[in-house]
Amino acid sequence: MKNKILIELQKRLKPSRYQHTLGVCETAMQLAKIHGVDLEKAELAALLHDIAKHESDDKMLQAAKEMHFPLEEAYLETPNLLHGVMSAKIAKDEFGIDDEDILNSLIYHTAGRENMSLLEKIIYLADIAEPGRKFFSGIEEIRHAMSNNINRAMILALRSSMTYVMQQEKLLIKDTVKAYNSLIAEELQKGT
Amino acid sequence: MKNKILIELQKRLKPSRYQHTLGVCETAMQLAKIHGVDLEKAELAALLHDIAKHESDDKMLQAAKEMHFPLEEAYLETPNLLHGVMSAKIAKDEFGIDDEDILNSLIYHTAGRENMSLLEKIIYLADIAEPGRKFFSGIEEIRHAMSNNINRAMILALRSSMTYVMQQEKLLIKDTVKAYNSLIAEELQKGT
Repeated sequence: MKNKILIELQKRLKPSRYQHTLGVCETAMQLAKIHGVDLEKAELAALLHDIAKHESDDKMLQAAKEMHFPLEEAYLETPNLLHGVMSAKIAKDEFGIDDEDILNSLIYHTAGRENMSLLEKIIYLADIAEPGRKFFSGIEEIRHAMSNNINRAMILALRSSMTYVMQQEKLLIKDTVKAYNSLIAEELQKGT
Repeated sequence: MKNKILIELQKRLKPSRYQHTLGVCETAMQLAKIHGVDLEKAELAALLHDIAKHESDDKMLQAAKEMHFPLEEAYLETPNLLHGVMSAKIAKDEFGIDDEDILNSLIYHTAGRENMSLLEKIIYLADIAEPGRKFFSGIEEIRHAMSNNINRAMILALRSSMTYVMQQEKLLIKDTVKAYNSLIAEELQKGT
């Protein structure tokens, strides 16, 4: 299966995106080991997370509709944000993957969502902080936190993502805000 | 009416908050002139916006319940965020103000909301950018924009507020996100 996916990735992704995928795979496997997540699932999810990245806007919108994914305005404005949803569709249709946790970790690796599973968090973080990822303010803190406090790493990563979206004066995705708020609420509950 | 309010403010507010209120009043009147909003409404709203600022958390929560204001988690965590809601209640109960636009501009001056009226925007911005407000990164840009492009000033102010909330690792208020997104969506529509 892994070889079949690698061949497909080389066909569908430009070299820099292929390298990024290998970086996500490496980081996801490390995090899976640390946090006790099935290594094979982490590897499959990491390999497939961006497989649809270079598809057209129209195909992404179509895939999202077929997946019954709710299309809020941010997605209509920037359909490429749906590449994770389309990657999940490809994983299901072309590679026969039916594990819900793997599919969700593809679907939600761009925006996050409330109550993410460990695997979902691992793919979200590996995508943002793999070794080849271009430097941004805060990346070292995320890399440090993701090994020893994955919820803290998620808060930092979501905050960084939302700050970037607002700097670009783009729409915030509701799921991202919910993801951030649900983790902050969890931390507040621990503190009380 | 103005004198009666000023006397009450001096009783209820500490001197620095009283000075802030006069600054908000000055800025709100300037903005009301520029944007063609009733000066008397702007003055009343500015004077009363923080009248409940030093009330106890319990009183604020009680006032919010009586005003049927939806209490999401951020308000339960930091009840002082409800001081605008309680100020509206005081404006109604003690000063007989029943103008919905004035009351809404008190209620929403802290978090904002979708589809704010001009008066609501003026009070929100005057609160953030009155001359005595402590410097923060971006304040000069907001001061410049609020005179000639009030929606742009709101985007900058909401972004600055949400960035600050996330730096403090506090909960984001849904209305604030909706306020930001609705203004961005409006700008995007103009652009297309």
